[in-house]
Amino acid sequence: MPEPKVMEAAVHAYVDAFANSDPAAVAALFAPGATVEDPIGSPPHVGHDAILGFYSASMQTGARLKLEGPVRIAGDYAAFAFSVLLHWDGTDKQVDVIDTFKFDEAGKVIEMRAYFGPTNMHGFT
Amino acid sequence: MPEPKVMEAAVHAYVDAFANSDPAAVAALFAPGATVEDPIGSPPHVGHDAILGFYSASMQTGARLKLEGPVRIAGDYAAFAFSVLLHWDGTDKQVDVIDTFKFDEAGKVIEMRAYFGPTNMHGFT
Repeated sequence: MPEPKVMEAAVHAYVDAFANSDPAAVAALFAPGATVEDPIGSPPHVGHDAILGFYSASMQTGARLKLEGPVRIAGDYAAFAFSVLLHWDGTDKQVDVIDTFKFDEAGKVIEMRAYFGPTNMHGFT
Repeated sequence: MPEPKVMEAAVHAYVDAFANSDPAAVAALFAPGATVEDPIGSPPHVGHDAILGFYSASMQTGARLKLEGPVRIAGDYAAFAFSVLLHWDGTDKQVDVIDTFKFDEAGKVIEMRAYFGPTNMHGFT
């Protein structure tokens, strides 16, 4: 499995890519056949093109991510808590999320799952 | 799926059970055939008796849990970040963890996974 520091760097690169509105930088973190389930339980985005499309759309909201607490590293998984901060329709909005990344041997994300729901969304009227 | 408030209450009951050193209270949150993978990737504890045994041993360390940030509720999953605080061998120790709970229709936990590893353990020499 990849070194913990490689997995932790991927999480920080993910956060930075949102700060830079750079969906290609996010997509580059994923393996070609990766799955993104955002939120968990919804139909997954499968493969590099679908993932790039998903993050391109996500970033059009101007979303920024704010990490909360240390990245947890367990075997070939990383888990991390964060807030998504949006300014949209004239108001500030926040969504509290926990993501899990599963990595392959090459240090690419092969499975992403996002945990959040209506109780975690603030400022949406 | 259970109401979000039922799932959130289960997380708080889990934290409270550690505060009260009450492994039976934790075990009561789980469905009879539940699995506990702590940390993720390790052989799971399967079923009520194994889960009770696991938490009985865990609580002998005097571990206390401190929730960090809101519980994330996504469909039939809850995810939450916390610290495990221990005083052991004369020193304070801390482990930073994220847990996920998957619930059944009855509001019992059927799958628990804990995300933490060596980079999240502090004060262990």
